[in-house]
Amino acid sequence: MANLEETLKKITGLDTGAMAKAKARQDELTKPLGSLGRLEQLSIQIAGIKGEVTPKLKHKAVITMAGDHGVVAQGVSAYPQDVTAQMVHNFIQGGAGINVLARLIGARVIVVDMGVAAKLEPNPLLLSRKVAPGTADMSIGPAMSIAQAIQALEAGIDIVEQESKKGLDIVGAGDMGIGNTTASSAICSVFSTECAEKITGRGTGLNDSQLAHKIEIIEKALAVNKPSAKQPLEVLAKVGGFEIGGLAGVMLGAAAHRVPVVIDGFISGAAALIATGLCPRMKDYIIASHLSVEAGHRVMLKHMGLKPLLDLDLRLGEGTGAALGIFLAEAATRILSEMATFSEAGVSEAEGK
Amino acid sequence: MANLEETLKKITGLDTGAMAKAKARQDELTKPLGSLGRLEQLSIQIAGIKGEVTPKLKHKAVITMAGDHGVVAQGVSAYPQDVTAQMVHNFIQGGAGINVLARLIGARVIVVDMGVAAKLEPNPLLLSRKVAPGTADMSIGPAMSIAQAIQALEAGIDIVEQESKKGLDIVGAGDMGIGNTTASSAICSVFSTECAEKITGRGTGLNDSQLAHKIEIIEKALAVNKPSAKQPLEVLAKVGGFEIGGLAGVMLGAAAHRVPVVIDGFISGAAALIATGLCPRMKDYIIASHLSVEAGHRVMLKHMGLKPLLDLDLRLGEGTGAALGIFLAEAATRILSEMATFSEAGVSEAEGK
Repeated sequence: MANLEETLKKITGLDTGAMAKAKARQDELTKPLGSLGRLEQLSIQIAGIKGEVTPKLKHKAVITMAGDHGVVAQGVSAYPQDVTAQMVHNFIQGGAGINVLARLIGARVIVVDMGVAAKLEPNPLLLSRKVAPGTADMSIGPAMSIAQAIQALEAGIDIVEQESKKGLDIVGAGDMGIGNTTASSAICSVFSTECAEKITGRGTGLNDSQLAHKIEIIEKALAVNKPSAKQPLEVLAKVGGFEIGGLAGVMLGAAAHRVPVVIDGFISGAAALIATGLCPRMKDYIIASHLSVEAGHRVMLKHMGLKPLLDLDLRLGEGTGAALGIFLAEAATRILSEMATFSEAGVSEAEGK
Repeated sequence: MANLEETLKKITGLDTGAMAKAKARQDELTKPLGSLGRLEQLSIQIAGIKGEVTPKLKHKAVITMAGDHGVVAQGVSAYPQDVTAQMVHNFIQGGAGINVLARLIGARVIVVDMGVAAKLEPNPLLLSRKVAPGTADMSIGPAMSIAQAIQALEAGIDIVEQESKKGLDIVGAGDMGIGNTTASSAICSVFSTECAEKITGRGTGLNDSQLAHKIEIIEKALAVNKPSAKQPLEVLAKVGGFEIGGLAGVMLGAAAHRVPVVIDGFISGAAALIATGLCPRMKDYIIASHLSVEAGHRVMLKHMGLKPLLDLDLRLGEGTGAALGIFLAEAATRILSEMATFSEAGVSEAEGK
């Protein structure tokens, strides 16, 4: 079983030697210098993560973690809590957005019950790592115990370790959980020190008065629990979620195994705040796939110094944006591996180069 | 052989019935309303273009057209003119950026010699539609005759007609031609009425003094030829290029055959200005893949009312950005076709919906 402390110690810096060689190769490919912009930078980052000059992304996976949130008792979501379990069923059946996009990019989807508030039937396509059937209501006390927070993180690490054995060259982080934008806004507020009003959005579709109520509940949760950014594990326990902890564990496990991790939207971003809080070096292993419509996402990414690849007004979650990001990562690495150099192709270089 | 006037007459409006049904289906899929943002809009546009509620993008192609520019005699590019022919060879060998990305998305690449200033050996992978071996120097007179402009446009239309017979569900428009950002800046200036300084960029990599010289040459070409936005065919003849005319023809041919056309960067954008100038309704058939680094691209897209899907600091051309755009179009249409509806999946809808 995975161990959090040991995993944190395993996360080391990027391979700067591989990055320098990848950069040199990019400059020899038959295109004007730097003309593939962010795809070039992305390929160099992945070279540094994997420690290979021309990394290949053969084995791709999206890990979609589901969990419920006690705070939904306060009426913070447009959807009933049952939808979390129903959507897990949809993932298993292959009918959800993430299934469609994962099929398109050739990635497997790993669906994990981290803490759904319903008894889910055993299914070979569902990993059960349930910490508890939903968190406690964070507006009246901590969402979970410290022991549960560690359990969630280690479940995520463990899953990445198991998946690595099957082959895992890149992993996307996706979520499902009614109420989880509320927890994510609270986490965002703690790390960014922005007030709840600024970084709370409409989630799955709240109206103005519902949004105002959600902000109040987040403020209450922060006032009751007093989480501090200096104690990331406590932040997770006080105002987090089981799927958020699991995803933070996925990120840490990926970094420890030198696997690039593509984050999705707002909930994935909250998990990244926890993971980078626990290990700042973690950031170098993250690829930010897209900028979510959800208000606080831009704040989160800025706080971590991450720049999203896409801005398509997405706000579905599940790892859908991450799947698109994995495609761009594959495009970037294929360019690096497969394009001809000037000398191979017999093409003249720029005058004065 | 294709006929320009007949093709323009064939371009009719989008199928609003199919669009309404596609929108209704998007709203029934198992996701919060509108949560896949621009992917949803893109799927609805494609439904309207193809006249199908759940269009499939099985047959994909990128048409990459090459041509040379007499204006290179004025020293407007960092690369020697030979590179156009060398890169055509690279396309045929499969070593260029567009080959790599086309393989990744499962698209065929159609390489066309529209007017390379070199004798290219016949090759089954190269379509020869050479209008002339390079345009005339637009800084001292028109780049081509009106007859040549029509020939270039009709070649593009003809190629789309031939490709349609093999199956063509979506097409990308790519370019290769040393000196073609100079022609494209001139075209951009005519249609946008912005001064050359504002919309001229560094192309493949000019320094400051080279850029200033390029702007002077563009100003001279505009002063000598006096092209008017009211006469798009004349703009093409006076300050265009054979590959630009060919690509404009590809766009018109695609619209006439109800095939969505994904434009690439600055040169593709210049071709789109000619095509939409000849037929304003053409715009509805265009998908703008990305925002190029090249200074005038934003101005072009704004002029046409197009919003790019990606902003990745790309400036390679060849159709590389278009290939990424075709992937997003496929993602969008697969979501529309393959996702389960709320009733199919037994998932509860939002309260009050």
